[in-house]
Amino acid sequence: MSKSKSAPAASRLPAGNGQASPGGDLQTIGGYLINRLWDYGVRDVFGIPGDFVLNFYGMLEESPLRVIGATREDCAGYAADAYARVHGLGACCVTYCVGGLSTCNSIAGAFAEKSPVVVISGAPGIAERRNDPLLHHKVRDFNTQLQVFEKITIAAASLDDPLTAFREIDRCLEAAVRYKRPVYLELPRDRVRSRALYPHWPASIELQSDAESLQASVSEAIEKINSAKQPVLIAGVEIHRFGLQKDVLKLAEGLNIPISATLLGKSVIAESHPLYLGVYEGAMGRESVRQYVETSDCVILLGAFMTDINLGIFTAHLDPSKCIYATSEQLRVGHHYFRDVLLKDFVTGLHGDKLSARPAVELPVREQRFGEPQPDDSPVTIASLYQHIESILSDKMVVIADVGDSLFAASDLTIRKQTEFISPAYYTSMGFAIPAAVGVQTADSELRPLVLVGDGAFQMTCLELSTAVRHGYNPIVVVLNNKGYTTERFLQEGPFNDILNWNYHRLPDLLGKGWGFEVKSVGELKQAMQAALAHRDSFSILNVHLTSTDVSPALRRLAERMSKTL
Amino acid sequence: MSKSKSAPAASRLPAGNGQASPGGDLQTIGGYLINRLWDYGVRDVFGIPGDFVLNFYGMLEESPLRVIGATREDCAGYAADAYARVHGLGACCVTYCVGGLSTCNSIAGAFAEKSPVVVISGAPGIAERRNDPLLHHKVRDFNTQLQVFEKITIAAASLDDPLTAFREIDRCLEAAVRYKRPVYLELPRDRVRSRALYPHWPASIELQSDAESLQASVSEAIEKINSAKQPVLIAGVEIHRFGLQKDVLKLAEGLNIPISATLLGKSVIAESHPLYLGVYEGAMGRESVRQYVETSDCVILLGAFMTDINLGIFTAHLDPSKCIYATSEQLRVGHHYFRDVLLKDFVTGLHGDKLSARPAVELPVREQRFGEPQPDDSPVTIASLYQHIESILSDKMVVIADVGDSLFAASDLTIRKQTEFISPAYYTSMGFAIPAAVGVQTADSELRPLVLVGDGAFQMTCLELSTAVRHGYNPIVVVLNNKGYTTERFLQEGPFNDILNWNYHRLPDLLGKGWGFEVKSVGELKQAMQAALAHRDSFSILNVHLTSTDVSPALRRLAERMSKTL
Repeated sequence: MSKSKSAPAASRLPAGNGQASPGGDLQTIGGYLINRLWDYGVRDVFGIPGDFVLNFYGMLEESPLRVIGATREDCAGYAADAYARVHGLGACCVTYCVGGLSTCNSIAGAFAEKSPVVVISGAPGIAERRNDPLLHHKVRDFNTQLQVFEKITIAAASLDDPLTAFREIDRCLEAAVRYKRPVYLELPRDRVRSRALYPHWPASIELQSDAESLQASVSEAIEKINSAKQPVLIAGVEIHRFGLQKDVLKLAEGLNIPISATLLGKSVIAESHPLYLGVYEGAMGRESVRQYVETSDCVILLGAFMTDINLGIFTAHLDPSKCIYATSEQLRVGHHYFRDVLLKDFVTGLHGDKLSARPAVELPVREQRFGEPQPDDSPVTIASLYQHIESILSDKMVVIADVGDSLFAASDLTIRKQTEFISPAYYTSMGFAIPAAVGVQTADSELRPLVLVGDGAFQMTCLELSTAVRHGYNPIVVVLNNKGYTTERFLQEGPFNDILNWNYHRLPDLLGKGWGFEVKSVGELKQAMQAALAHRDSFSILNVHLTSTDVSPALRRLAERMSKTL
Repeated sequence: MSKSKSAPAASRLPAGNGQASPGGDLQTIGGYLINRLWDYGVRDVFGIPGDFVLNFYGMLEESPLRVIGATREDCAGYAADAYARVHGLGACCVTYCVGGLSTCNSIAGAFAEKSPVVVISGAPGIAERRNDPLLHHKVRDFNTQLQVFEKITIAAASLDDPLTAFREIDRCLEAAVRYKRPVYLELPRDRVRSRALYPHWPASIELQSDAESLQASVSEAIEKINSAKQPVLIAGVEIHRFGLQKDVLKLAEGLNIPISATLLGKSVIAESHPLYLGVYEGAMGRESVRQYVETSDCVILLGAFMTDINLGIFTAHLDPSKCIYATSEQLRVGHHYFRDVLLKDFVTGLHGDKLSARPAVELPVREQRFGEPQPDDSPVTIASLYQHIESILSDKMVVIADVGDSLFAASDLTIRKQTEFISPAYYTSMGFAIPAAVGVQTADSELRPLVLVGDGAFQMTCLELSTAVRHGYNPIVVVLNNKGYTTERFLQEGPFNDILNWNYHRLPDLLGKGWGFEVKSVGELKQAMQAALAHRDSFSILNVHLTSTDVSPALRRLAERMSKTL
């Protein structure tokens, strides 16, 4: 289904000058939007057509952007989110209300986890709206969907007026990239080809740090680090979103400071790096990491959000006076807050010769995480499953973990390269992983997703593997089949945690393609995984039977902690 | 999975008097909510648990309300909507944001089509919110979800304060029943068992018509009807929602006035009734109905909304001066508007001896709709499919049509009993039908759903048949497999209208239960349908192959009309 398209020529031209481009006529609202998306690096748009957006779909089809049809709009949202995490910016395009409102949850997740997704929604034409008729798909009034998205995006606009539409496109796309949050653009169907009223040049305002604030904050931070005995770095998800991985690594290597990551930021730093400590998540994480971090006299948190799950449901003990805390939204050195300092400027500001290099440090030995390999005839357990997964991970794989023990157990996997671990580890919306795999392979067809997903989450969005089939993608899907919502069983048991036990490995029969395996023993696991790795023509799915009480130590600790706050 | 539960005793007691009831302690916010739902007739609640709502799920489990677990929250919303259409009021219960925001589209649809659904969402405890921590599932701030639902419900409240929570429950539930629209109740998890601060009695304010307005409007209407030569009734969906079917029928029968229905109101009046004309939908509908209605000198529209689809994309020609138009929101006789008149009072006001009975009228002969039966070896077409469906419909079946030609072709089916045709005929959200079948059979296990669904819509929500399996429901699902979004092909053709061709009949292999049939010829259709009717233990699914250009006359007319407004 995919097609090869060539780049638009001269896309950075002002609108309104009458010049056409392969991305559509820059003088039109639709054409300008397509060209600006291209300028920002978007190459693929996820979505489902519908009559109020068909005009724009026609224009997309003629453009160099590739349209990836999803089975459901929420899946298009998840795919665009994952695409953004790999590629920098994502986009989905849907129809009015029945389409747009179906993406609310995935877009809210992108907002919460700072993933920049552009939501483009069709809408009834402005001319049709006269006398406020009851057009299909309308909810309360014609602004309902826009109002909803104003709550869950960082910027939202209706492109109903050619006088303002071009500037609104600039404003919203810039906000997406600047704040790493989703934005919403609503395009009435009779405005797709509306022409600019005057020549429009793309606006671009560079944010700058306040020089004195920057200077003061960096100085204080350097002083704090230099006088510390056991400094430690914690890298968070924003290091990835703002492309600062190399800067952080340079800092760690130059100073010989060990580096940890949050769960949401897992794999921001390659986990095979000699200075890598492991994921820090309070009492939920590995004890050696917790101890090293919490006994540090200078914890440098970069781009890390202090969410409940990152903090191990608030079991983390970090003394603010010993912390340097920098994100795109806040900067604090000890108890001093600084304003108007960009994260990038702060991180690069720490480079240079003012920081003293340190002698090599001895990192704590990593605990045995998944136990010893088990004999082939023993039943698969969470431990033996993850032990095997750890052994087959390669540089060309990306681990995508859905919510539940698929995520918590995965926190102990060693990810070889940067940003090859993707998970909704803060918003924790079940059903993220399968459509995310589609988004990841759309962004980089060389990356092979290894999807770890519980049966409950799998039931929500597994059919998006249909899109994987259409495009020849080949994710390996491991279903942790423990017959219900296991994480919740630890909080409150009840029949509402039961779900139907499907023959997950039979999904290929329904879709007409793919490789299915039923796995009960360690031997079957090895065989199935070997076959899945070998079959590169389509997706593979492993239905891994687990008992409903077999959970990772991380989940056990988390559940115990959460049940106390219920 | 279902269980038999007994009714709560003395549920209509004031809260705060210390008296417990089987529905939970009436003094607590959660217990009061459960009891009030019971009072309003709710017996089943659809949903998926999550940690912020687990407390309340525990309370539901102890109550007489039955919890029906769905595979996805949006499906729970659709099921609750369909349940409300059959049962009067529906409810779904979900967790914070990842659950609630997933129901936005189905709840917006219930709003648009006037289906009263109570959305109950868990939320972080008030105590946990101190210092605005980054709790998982949070989007922008703790009020984001409430603000979103304020846009798509008729009433919304956070039950965070025991001083106001009991009154808020009363207000919202009453609004749902009065306006036939969804409402939203957000229950922070540490408020589930919060106790009333003072004794609370359920409030109930009866709306009343303004007596003089009522009198004047009824008089004018009677005069208009009496002086008309060819009056005709058009019954809309509100006749069902407000339970006025018998009143409208009495009117038609007493006066010998033929009666039509809108598409959204189809089957409000049993379509086998001798006075029934057919569905009126402008040029989209049957010509004889259009002609009879549009040449009428007095069109009495009762509970009918003038949506674009009801009006055949505005091809209807109704002269306002010849219309009596009454809904719960508006009353107009000719060009005179009246206010403060309840729909029920107006309809029953027309009864009595002031209206003159008329001689028996001769109704136009119904055109042959689906053609002659075809030989067994001929390929199935839309016409032969619907011809066969028409022949097997019985009184104990309910037809549920999804969006697309499944709906348009179905408009010509003869539905035997009242409200046995269910479809999102105004909001037209694809994917409604399968979860709706679950809602219908939960409301009335004796009703057997016949689900007509296109392949595109089927791909969106077909897995909700898992819930049908869990509860032993036995819908018959007919997949109109025309390999894509056929309705859209008529508006704008493009590769974005293609979807993957699944082996739809293999779904039972995945779910572990159900009967699947692949249908290509008329003979196979007859055999498969006979088998499906005989298999009462589980769902059946017919994968009916159609060509992508074979559409009903209704869709052809609609698509022609819509392509002009693009």
